[in-house]
Amino acid sequence: MGEIVGAVDYLREERRSAKFDVKAMKIMWAGGKHEFEVADRMARLVASDPEFKKDDRIHQGRRELVKNTLRKVAHGWKRINELRLTDEEAAQLRIFVDEPCFIDLHTRMFIPAIEGQATDEQQRKWLPLAYRMQIFGCYAQTELGHGSNVQGLETTATFDHETDEFVLHSPTLTSIKWWPGGLGKVSTHAIVYARMIIHGQDHGVQGFIVQLRSLDDHELLPGITVGDIGMKFGNRALNAMDNGFLLFDHVRIPRDQMLMRMVQVTREGKVESGVPRQLIYGTMVLVRQTIVYDASRSLSRAVCIATRYSAVRRQFGSENGLETQVIDYKTQQSRLFPLLASAYAFRIVAGWLKWLYNDVNDQLQAKDFSRLPEIHACTAGLKALTTSVTADGIEECRKLCGGHGYLESSGLPELFASYVPACTFEGDNVVLLLQVARFLMKTVLNLGSGKPPVGTIAYMGRVEHLTESRCTVQKAEDWLNPDVVIEAFEARSLRMSLACAQNLSRFSNQDEGFLELSAELLGAALAHCQLIVVSKFIEKLQEDIPGVGVKEQLQALCSIYVLSIINKHLGDFLATGSITPKQASLAQDLLRSLFSKVRPNAVALVDAFNYTDHFLGSALGRYDGNVYPKLYEEAMKDPMNQTEVLDGYQEYIRPILKHQRRESRL
Amino acid sequence: MGEIVGAVDYLREERRSAKFDVKAMKIMWAGGKHEFEVADRMARLVASDPEFKKDDRIHQGRRELVKNTLRKVAHGWKRINELRLTDEEAAQLRIFVDEPCFIDLHTRMFIPAIEGQATDEQQRKWLPLAYRMQIFGCYAQTELGHGSNVQGLETTATFDHETDEFVLHSPTLTSIKWWPGGLGKVSTHAIVYARMIIHGQDHGVQGFIVQLRSLDDHELLPGITVGDIGMKFGNRALNAMDNGFLLFDHVRIPRDQMLMRMVQVTREGKVESGVPRQLIYGTMVLVRQTIVYDASRSLSRAVCIATRYSAVRRQFGSENGLETQVIDYKTQQSRLFPLLASAYAFRIVAGWLKWLYNDVNDQLQAKDFSRLPEIHACTAGLKALTTSVTADGIEECRKLCGGHGYLESSGLPELFASYVPACTFEGDNVVLLLQVARFLMKTVLNLGSGKPPVGTIAYMGRVEHLTESRCTVQKAEDWLNPDVVIEAFEARSLRMSLACAQNLSRFSNQDEGFLELSAELLGAALAHCQLIVVSKFIEKLQEDIPGVGVKEQLQALCSIYVLSIINKHLGDFLATGSITPKQASLAQDLLRSLFSKVRPNAVALVDAFNYTDHFLGSALGRYDGNVYPKLYEEAMKDPMNQTEVLDGYQEYIRPILKHQRRESRL
Repeated sequence: MGEIVGAVDYLREERRSAKFDVKAMKIMWAGGKHEFEVADRMARLVASDPEFKKDDRIHQGRRELVKNTLRKVAHGWKRINELRLTDEEAAQLRIFVDEPCFIDLHTRMFIPAIEGQATDEQQRKWLPLAYRMQIFGCYAQTELGHGSNVQGLETTATFDHETDEFVLHSPTLTSIKWWPGGLGKVSTHAIVYARMIIHGQDHGVQGFIVQLRSLDDHELLPGITVGDIGMKFGNRALNAMDNGFLLFDHVRIPRDQMLMRMVQVTREGKVESGVPRQLIYGTMVLVRQTIVYDASRSLSRAVCIATRYSAVRRQFGSENGLETQVIDYKTQQSRLFPLLASAYAFRIVAGWLKWLYNDVNDQLQAKDFSRLPEIHACTAGLKALTTSVTADGIEECRKLCGGHGYLESSGLPELFASYVPACTFEGDNVVLLLQVARFLMKTVLNLGSGKPPVGTIAYMGRVEHLTESRCTVQKAEDWLNPDVVIEAFEARSLRMSLACAQNLSRFSNQDEGFLELSAELLGAALAHCQLIVVSKFIEKLQEDIPGVGVKEQLQALCSIYVLSIINKHLGDFLATGSITPKQASLAQDLLRSLFSKVRPNAVALVDAFNYTDHFLGSALGRYDGNVYPKLYEEAMKDPMNQTEVLDGYQEYIRPILKHQRRESRL
Repeated sequence: MGEIVGAVDYLREERRSAKFDVKAMKIMWAGGKHEFEVADRMARLVASDPEFKKDDRIHQGRRELVKNTLRKVAHGWKRINELRLTDEEAAQLRIFVDEPCFIDLHTRMFIPAIEGQATDEQQRKWLPLAYRMQIFGCYAQTELGHGSNVQGLETTATFDHETDEFVLHSPTLTSIKWWPGGLGKVSTHAIVYARMIIHGQDHGVQGFIVQLRSLDDHELLPGITVGDIGMKFGNRALNAMDNGFLLFDHVRIPRDQMLMRMVQVTREGKVESGVPRQLIYGTMVLVRQTIVYDASRSLSRAVCIATRYSAVRRQFGSENGLETQVIDYKTQQSRLFPLLASAYAFRIVAGWLKWLYNDVNDQLQAKDFSRLPEIHACTAGLKALTTSVTADGIEECRKLCGGHGYLESSGLPELFASYVPACTFEGDNVVLLLQVARFLMKTVLNLGSGKPPVGTIAYMGRVEHLTESRCTVQKAEDWLNPDVVIEAFEARSLRMSLACAQNLSRFSNQDEGFLELSAELLGAALAHCQLIVVSKFIEKLQEDIPGVGVKEQLQALCSIYVLSIINKHLGDFLATGSITPKQASLAQDLLRSLFSKVRPNAVALVDAFNYTDHFLGSALGRYDGNVYPKLYEEAMKDPMNQTEVLDGYQEYIRPILKHQRRESRL
């Protein structure tokens, strides 16, 4: 069977047919030449280091898996020191090592919480320890009985005036801290959120720095019970991480381990306010920007696998002896290409959010908090939209790989199981979209009250125009006009918000009305978020984008993104009269022709993500398309294949086969 | 923390609020008193037998997991014999044992293939061996490079006239048999599909019975290479099963091991035809009926978990000290209740398919093959529709359980990973829906050619009426009228098919047109299938259904099913003019009020599935709602919790914590 094994590029023809400068697209995707160079170098560094091998993990038991991850963390840390990598390089290296672990929580949650919520004095004490990894920290907020509603937390931190300490305690089973990554086995410290009780009075939820384990021998400190919450979705995925639980039995910490930047407690137990809470919004924008960026990476990774495999896999319609490549089927294209377009759209939005982060910080420096509600709504909505589409999109890519997508060696089950928590963490997507909806309702109610809406909701100020406007599309190509597209999306979004507001006005109790209409409100919020993505994609296309054919490809992808949303949410567009059935049908026609346009460029468009085979971790998504020998090779590694006759044959199979009495039934 | 542990029913209030006879609903769900009694008895038998414990599987490695499943198979077989269970009882027992294993393939694929495709003489030889389990068989059709397209298979079976044998051979890597369950390690025999070559001529794909392993010691026979294809999606799920690969190196079998019921090969190598192929359509209907039935079971299982947990879980909106049950939120109801309604709808359709199976068999006996194309399209479509909704629905239920749904102890990750292959096996859903679409196009083209369409496509005969009709809904309650609903669904389906046919007519090459328009054709096929489900649900409600309030609940669920489809596919209904935006808005209003009507009955409606805690295997779905102590108990079983200090601390954590040089960076 040597005839199809070898150093051949089975996708060479696909790459030859590309009509754009792939290297220039890689730079666009990375966000710049420098960013491309760093990411490329780190990806290769990881891929070429045998210590970072990933394909031995599938048969490891839980303890072995966790230990293996710790080994890589230690090795990564060693390499970062030896090579004197910059922070940017180190972050990229960790991305390409591609194993969820406690360091993610230490760097993304523990340190930012101290930077944002600790006083300068507290920061001087704790940050050097955290930066140098002399302590490992996690972020202990959610409890067994309490998730999204932070105000419902039950853990208490009671001030003891005599000793100048806070006493942390878990009063009920439901108050056990539950889920924090890195908590179960590794972290020496945690930021713990608890109800602050002073002189019998509840001052709401505050953050505290609590040491959990001895820095000498890693044993737990007195009064602290910590453990792992057990197996999670998937084979490996987050099982490599020690998501944990935590119970306090009257654990004492010094008063100055309360995070006091926003709220301060004096020696006497007096509660005073510090800097305005709004100042930490910058961090929130940064966290959400990272999540949107991660979404584009995970979705593009799945799309890369599905696209390459769809170009390798052949089925039905044999002409000239070869069956048809499945990527040539419109059914495949109509599911795959909108996801390809979404990956690009989310990457571009993540780039815009990076700019927004700097902009917000400038505003905060100038003590201007006026745009925060809009920015909160925008980033919350984009987090919800991009993570939901990505989670569903990964699973869709798995299905697009047919039966083989169900094999772990396809890399897709692992990617899915690792990704889906993004829909829940950092704000459940439904809860976030309802916050967006609440903001939209407020905006609609205030229309005409003088202050015109700005930023992502500026369009709502043109309410007279948008409630009357009619889409001008008369032939399919008219849908390529960005002004026409934006207006259709603005009209749909605004009209949905107006309809919700009108329905709300029928309720005497607005809170009740909001609950009753929440399904419709979610629809309005989603429409608004999709408009933001479409706008930012179109804005990007108005910039100068270097490289032969690069902008043209992005234009096609942008149109596919736009038209597939119209297709999927057709009910919204028609019910609000934003477009007509005839215009919808023209959109469908154009979409089909755009699929044909993207088809010869598809493999090159996923090559532009610049993912190594190591990072993809997929027999189906290999760069060279040499799929089948790799699938066979991976199968042979299974421990089941170590013996010809199965362990269990003597005890459980043979007795049945040899039992010949008549009464033996099926 | 003893205060919330104990023998309390946390859902008692929920059960008290139910307004219908739950026992009568259980009987409706089971399909009759006898069926209920058998299923109930078998479920309890399994749940009470410690040998069938399921909760120890999560930490087993691959070989241990497979061996554990074999142990249960052997124990189940022993109990079936000891208790002299009927076939019906044995089948129910295996369902509640709830572990995918080789027996499923032996009974559902290997035996039916022999029953359907072997001659009477062959059946006399092979069936007793298979029935008595003196051999174990699997169904080896798909190959590494070939899935849905059976005609593309590469394995050859070449007739050797001299020895009167067939020589089976795998000529390429892509011809390796790949995926068959039970093949890798257990089966002694396989039905192998291969291209039959006689005197150098290719006679297409035929089935052959091939022995793989010695019946003495289970060693592989000469020329046969067999193994396991490796890990699949999930922790346990199908990893308990030995899906396998198979290569032939010129393996010889006697001529009479070709399955000769439909095609015969004489001693001289002459190919003759036997009974008509259509006679095996009865089996196909039966297989698909089983799949639809399984879909209703898996979806209802996920819905049961999510519903009970949604009634236990509280979040936000605290009044009287307690937060609101999440099942009271409209966002939760609008995602959960349509799935509850779908589970009931699919169970009712499965019941109808059972009737259809008998009806088809009567027709086949009478050599009447005229309705086969319609029945093929109907069953193919229902398979595709119900399995897709179920796969997505299980994942949606997991998300409805918030963070805890991501824990394996919720039971939902395992259920999802076990279920999703149903979208691919027995016909990929996209391929099946395209077959439905092809049939619909043929039907539309033949309209007015004399023979009026019958059965599930009878409505297409009323083309004049349905293209002109207008939906008469004027107030929300009008949507409760079954005639109005059916006509809206018929109009939508027929108009979508007509639009596709019209677009097709613009192509000079019909095959090309079909490929180009396949995304639209899928939409038309889906609309037709949803109409079938809606019709059968409505027909069921015209029967006498015993039990106080039972029919009323089913009526509410039927309306929820109908209106949530209108909501989800609003674009179709509006674009075809089957309903107006105003009528859509009324549908939405009615849907909300139906959610409120179902709400107090929700827990009782999932109790009616009669699932034991053993079968559910979920800490979140427990009958008594005592969720939190169970989650904690499950977590404590993790091997990570065996030591306080993690294995790996000395090697990988301590060196980082103790390394204090300045250059150590994050």
